[in-house]
Amino acid sequence: MTSLQMSAKEEMVEKFLDAAARGDVVLVTAHLAQLPSVINQTGYSGWTALMLAARNGHYDVVEKLLSHGCDKYLVNSSSQTAYDIAKFWGHRHISNLLSRTDEGSQRVLLGSEVSPQENYFSREMLDRLSGKRTDKTWLESKHSDPDTVYLMFSKLNPMVSMPQEDDGGETKLCRFRYEAVKDLLQKPATVLIFLGVEKRKNPSSSSDAVQEPPAWFAIGSDEDAVELLKRCREKNFCFPKSPHRDLLKLNEEEAGVVAQARSVLSWHSRYSFCPTCGSSTSLEEAGYKRSCLNSECRSLQGVHNTCYPRVDPVVIMLVIHPDGNQCLLGRKKMFPAGMFSCLAGFVEPGESLEEAVRREVEEESGVKVGPVNYVSCQPWPMPSSLMMGCLAVAMSTDISVDESEIEEARWFPRQQVIDSMFKGSHPTFSVPPRQTIAHQLIRHWIGINSNL
Amino acid sequence: MTSLQMSAKEEMVEKFLDAAARGDVVLVTAHLAQLPSVINQTGYSGWTALMLAARNGHYDVVEKLLSHGCDKYLVNSSSQTAYDIAKFWGHRHISNLLSRTDEGSQRVLLGSEVSPQENYFSREMLDRLSGKRTDKTWLESKHSDPDTVYLMFSKLNPMVSMPQEDDGGETKLCRFRYEAVKDLLQKPATVLIFLGVEKRKNPSSSSDAVQEPPAWFAIGSDEDAVELLKRCREKNFCFPKSPHRDLLKLNEEEAGVVAQARSVLSWHSRYSFCPTCGSSTSLEEAGYKRSCLNSECRSLQGVHNTCYPRVDPVVIMLVIHPDGNQCLLGRKKMFPAGMFSCLAGFVEPGESLEEAVRREVEEESGVKVGPVNYVSCQPWPMPSSLMMGCLAVAMSTDISVDESEIEEARWFPRQQVIDSMFKGSHPTFSVPPRQTIAHQLIRHWIGINSNL
Repeated sequence: MTSLQMSAKEEMVEKFLDAAARGDVVLVTAHLAQLPSVINQTGYSGWTALMLAARNGHYDVVEKLLSHGCDKYLVNSSSQTAYDIAKFWGHRHISNLLSRTDEGSQRVLLGSEVSPQENYFSREMLDRLSGKRTDKTWLESKHSDPDTVYLMFSKLNPMVSMPQEDDGGETKLCRFRYEAVKDLLQKPATVLIFLGVEKRKNPSSSSDAVQEPPAWFAIGSDEDAVELLKRCREKNFCFPKSPHRDLLKLNEEEAGVVAQARSVLSWHSRYSFCPTCGSSTSLEEAGYKRSCLNSECRSLQGVHNTCYPRVDPVVIMLVIHPDGNQCLLGRKKMFPAGMFSCLAGFVEPGESLEEAVRREVEEESGVKVGPVNYVSCQPWPMPSSLMMGCLAVAMSTDISVDESEIEEARWFPRQQVIDSMFKGSHPTFSVPPRQTIAHQLIRHWIGINSNL
Repeated sequence: MTSLQMSAKEEMVEKFLDAAARGDVVLVTAHLAQLPSVINQTGYSGWTALMLAARNGHYDVVEKLLSHGCDKYLVNSSSQTAYDIAKFWGHRHISNLLSRTDEGSQRVLLGSEVSPQENYFSREMLDRLSGKRTDKTWLESKHSDPDTVYLMFSKLNPMVSMPQEDDGGETKLCRFRYEAVKDLLQKPATVLIFLGVEKRKNPSSSSDAVQEPPAWFAIGSDEDAVELLKRCREKNFCFPKSPHRDLLKLNEEEAGVVAQARSVLSWHSRYSFCPTCGSSTSLEEAGYKRSCLNSECRSLQGVHNTCYPRVDPVVIMLVIHPDGNQCLLGRKKMFPAGMFSCLAGFVEPGESLEEAVRREVEEESGVKVGPVNYVSCQPWPMPSSLMMGCLAVAMSTDISVDESEIEEARWFPRQQVIDSMFKGSHPTFSVPPRQTIAHQLIRHWIGINSNL
């Protein structure tokens, strides 16, 4: 390709992006017909045509680009997808379109066209490459690789940079290089977890197909937070004090990484000793296994769950009144004033999800539940739950609260829920924030038989 | 009510049952109009009209009885429901009808009319009454209650009676009374688990509404199986040697009880020591909690998962070829010759179900997966997994097997799967038995877009 051709192409990209930004769907279509490869090209700050159309609310252009197979998962230099942009600017019809999978026709093969929504903490920007966890040579080469990213954790919380004006007010993970952490890696109390390598976003488009993508590790250190922070010159670095609040301020991708790292680190923090014989254990497989140091221990014969991280399945459910127009929400004493949420509880041994939903709802509220449907799930890294979100239909309506579990439970009419979530400047109650699966379950219910 | 009236009623019940058994839907309807309460009455061996109609393949009578609100969950004196009977006698259209929830109209409220199937190990015949686990007085009164049922476990397996000709060839749990086990309860090595109380099947119909239903306990004993068996005079009592095979021979209700008991017992067997500090622990809350005996241990401050039974979420998935007409099955070396099954693997910390499906399929077979839908789940008490069954659509078709995980993986055409499962006397391969969720997932897929 000559430099003249390059420049002609650059000009075309610029015109194409401009057409998308202005909402000129005819010109966008013409460009795509002439040069299909223009579709994922980026302009200023890594913005694609899709992002520009999403920013300015041009639904028809977004639709056209999607139908031509554009990559909707690309991010701009601020790590935003077109979906993030549409959502931020309040173009709900576009963010809905972008959140839909382009796989409707394939879903028919599953006997259901419902696509589970993506919840906060569940996006995976890393490929875990679990096969590499036993490859010590490979892991060691990654440790000192200048591209490798290290995250630092103290008491299970990651070091983050607090929002500054010029980064759009986002809390971000602090990423370190080998040089900054190599002495920490030598300390015996340091726990090192291999998180994975970055997934390629656009494998065909650039030269990094030959180069291996960067590896990520999490460092859990026993040094206290103050000591760790002394290593940094940045004043706005800190360890969040309130993970239930502060970890919800990360972007979707970093939240997913924290979910993985924090769950594994909390397992190490709680499971340092062999539960079968009480002996000490050693950390193996890049942080995903602990083996008993007592050679007589039966946990060393065969495969035992004692050696692997724990994940606790939880059911969380929105119970719908038999009239279809009210939902059951409860509040715990520790909730902020006025907040109500879905009921929830741990799945017991030998219990199906659906039975766990019925048991928990009856225990906590006295309401009997019939049909139960799984909707979507959310890893919740405090410490290591897997929240299985369900809708359920009540078979009885009298409420009798178990006060050891919740303070109050009530039927809320659909319109009151809608008003509180979307409209009222004086809401009569509140629900948990959008990053929680409780919030998403409520929205999902509101969306059934309506266009919200 | 005079004895004359009683006898008139008895005569009517007999005629009604006879009409149901013969398939006379007109007479059945007439009886129901005349005396609605006849609907759940039982005759010889506790058989209801529904059971008789199910036995003899009278679909229209079954439909009529269901539409009049008969209780399809009643059991006869052999603990069989109408569904069990229809299934046993091969009336598949009737067993399908009986397995369907009568809640279709309510499911609309959930935005999906798909009803999760019930899997083996997931039926709950007991109400766990978790609130009673801390009520020592109540528990003690139940220990010596003559109605209380005890199950005995050695090395995690329950004592069962092996099939005899006169009980229909069923493996059954051996149920003991207090007198038979009271000395065992005194031994310090005995683990005692409160399982729950029997659910009332038909609360309105009899006098047991005043009486509390029987409580069930599981006893895990360190005495060896031979010692325990000496306590019984029955020759056909035994402890199964091969739980993966033998525990699949129980009826649905007993299987559900074993799932609960075995999962909790295996937790005690593996988690005797505090994982946080390595100290000994004591058993609490009727077998559902272990507390560290070291008063300094941080597991005693706040609520920690180390103190509660472990449940391991597993994904098991049937991957469908993009052409919709083939499915991906794999085999492990340990499988019986010719057997193939769904791929499966443990959910990792910080991972959603759907991502776990994608990761495991790609790791084990090299196939990339797009949309994933949850279908149903199965508690699998070996030792304490929760199998989350999903269908998934492949986005690529080349297979590259991870030989450390599986021996072979292949695409099987739908017709070949149908032939092997339902027809061939010389099947080209086999799938796991009907008690497994793998089997049920495959059947579920076959059922989509077909009438099988």
